[in-house]
Amino acid sequence: MTRKELVEHIKKKETYLCVGLDSDIEKLPHHLRNLDDAQFEFNKQIIDATLEHCVAYKINTAFYESRGSKGWQSLEKTISYIPTSHFTIADAKRGDIGNTSTQYAKAFFETMNFDALTVAPYMGEDSVTPFLEYDGKWAIVLGLTSNPGAADFEMTRSDDTYLFEKVLQKTSGWGNPGNLMFVIGATKHEMVRNIRDAYPDHFFLVPGVGAQGGSLSEISASGMNSECGLLVNASRAVIFSSQGENFVAAARLSARKYHEEMKVFLNRYAK
Amino acid sequence: MTRKELVEHIKKKETYLCVGLDSDIEKLPHHLRNLDDAQFEFNKQIIDATLEHCVAYKINTAFYESRGSKGWQSLEKTISYIPTSHFTIADAKRGDIGNTSTQYAKAFFETMNFDALTVAPYMGEDSVTPFLEYDGKWAIVLGLTSNPGAADFEMTRSDDTYLFEKVLQKTSGWGNPGNLMFVIGATKHEMVRNIRDAYPDHFFLVPGVGAQGGSLSEISASGMNSECGLLVNASRAVIFSSQGENFVAAARLSARKYHEEMKVFLNRYAK
Repeated sequence: MTRKELVEHIKKKETYLCVGLDSDIEKLPHHLRNLDDAQFEFNKQIIDATLEHCVAYKINTAFYESRGSKGWQSLEKTISYIPTSHFTIADAKRGDIGNTSTQYAKAFFETMNFDALTVAPYMGEDSVTPFLEYDGKWAIVLGLTSNPGAADFEMTRSDDTYLFEKVLQKTSGWGNPGNLMFVIGATKHEMVRNIRDAYPDHFFLVPGVGAQGGSLSEISASGMNSECGLLVNASRAVIFSSQGENFVAAARLSARKYHEEMKVFLNRYAK
Repeated sequence: MTRKELVEHIKKKETYLCVGLDSDIEKLPHHLRNLDDAQFEFNKQIIDATLEHCVAYKINTAFYESRGSKGWQSLEKTISYIPTSHFTIADAKRGDIGNTSTQYAKAFFETMNFDALTVAPYMGEDSVTPFLEYDGKWAIVLGLTSNPGAADFEMTRSDDTYLFEKVLQKTSGWGNPGNLMFVIGATKHEMVRNIRDAYPDHFFLVPGVGAQGGSLSEISASGMNSECGLLVNASRAVIFSSQGENFVAAARLSARKYHEEMKVFLNRYAK
C-alpha cells in the first residue's frame, strides 16, 4: 500500500487504529479452543468485528512461531484473510546481514503479502536496506520502543544524542517517508513532540497504548501531523477485551471506542 | 546442552566448527531440486557428511521462512535430524518486549528443541532475559557483527565506549557464561583480543569466516581461552563448496580442512 492510499484510508474512515493480532493460543476463549485452527478462527472473527474501526492489522509473529509450522500456517491464513483495504504489518523485528535480510524481505513481502515489516536496526545499513527495495512496501524501524528495556541502550547518550536519535537520523537517510516508518512507543509521549519536529513527514507506528499504559490522547497531541502520520496499535486491549463467549462484541466495542476518540483527535490535530 | 558438555565435545573431537545451514533453495544442487523436500534432503546429506568434523550446527531461519510454512516444516525436520551430540543454534536474531520474547523462547526452546538462539539486544533487558530462563539453553547476543553495517551503530562511541561494548557489559550482567554467549564477527579480529580480555569466560559465536573474508587463524589466536571459548561458523564455504553432484564430498572435504586447522589451533592456544 502506498503512502497516498494509507492517508486516504485514514482520512476517509477517520481512524488511525491498528489492531494487533497477538493471538496467544492460551488466552483464546474456551469455546474456540477445540476447533481445528482456533488461532485463525479467532483472528477471523476479530477481523470481521473490527474492520470498520481500523485501518491496519499488526501480526506479532512470535505468537504463531511458538506453535511451530502449524502456527506459521495460521499466520499465512490470517494475512490472506485481511482485505487489501487494510494496511498489514508483520511485527517480526527482523534484521541480519544483507543476504539474510533479503531472504526475510522475500518471506514477508513475496511469500506472504504483508505491506510492512518491523525491523531491528542494531546491525546497520545492509541489514535494513533490503526491506526498502519493494514498491508499496515498508520497513518500520525500531526507534524508541515502549518497554522498560528501552532505557538500557536506546536511551543511552553520546554527544547529547540518544542512540535512538542516531538510529532515526541514519535510517531516515536510507529510505524516505514513502517506504520507511519508525516505531515510537506511546509510553514515551513526552519525547514525541521533539521526534515529530525532527521528522515532520514520517509515519510513526505507536505501540504501548492499552495494556502497556500509554495515552492515546497524549500521543495524538504530540505526534500527529497534517496527514495524521500515526498508526496507533492496540493489541490485548482490543482482542482480549473479553475472553468469554462475547469476545467478538467486546472487541468491536473496544475498537469502536478508539475509533470515536480518534475522530476527535483527527479533527483537532490533523490540519 | 550445558557448558561442560559443550567443552567436552570440543576437547574430545578437537574441533570448534559450527556448520551454518543457510540452505538457500535457489543454490541447491540441480539434481536435488525436484525432490519433495529438497531443502531438508540437502541438509540431511550435509549433516551426515560433516558430523564428525563439527560440534555445532547453526540454522539461519531466514532461508526457511522465505518458503513460508513449508520452509518452517523443513526447519523442524532439520532440527529433529541433528543428533543430540551436536550443539544447535537457531540463528533467528529475535528480541521483543518481554511477553513476546517469552513466546520466541517457547518457539525455539520448547516447540523446537534448539540449544541456543541468537538475540538482538536493541530493546534491552526485558527483551533478552526470557531467553535465559531455561536450563541448558543459551541466548547468543549480538555484540560486534561481521557485516559492513556494524560501523553504523555497534561501532559508535560514547565516553570512549563503543555501543557493542555497552551491550556486552550490560547483557553479561543479565546472564552468565553458562547461558549467554556473544556474536563476535571474525572480520573484526583486531578487536577480539580486547573483548577476550574483558570477557575471559564467555563463549563467542564467530561468523564471518569463509565467504565474508574473516581469518580462522587470526580469530583463533586472539579469541581462544583455555576451554576454547569459540564456536567458529562457516556456512557457504562448507555447504556450497560445490553445487554439483559431488556436493556431499566437497562439503565433507571443506569441513575436514577446518577441522584439521582447528586441531592445530586448539593445541596451540587452548591451554
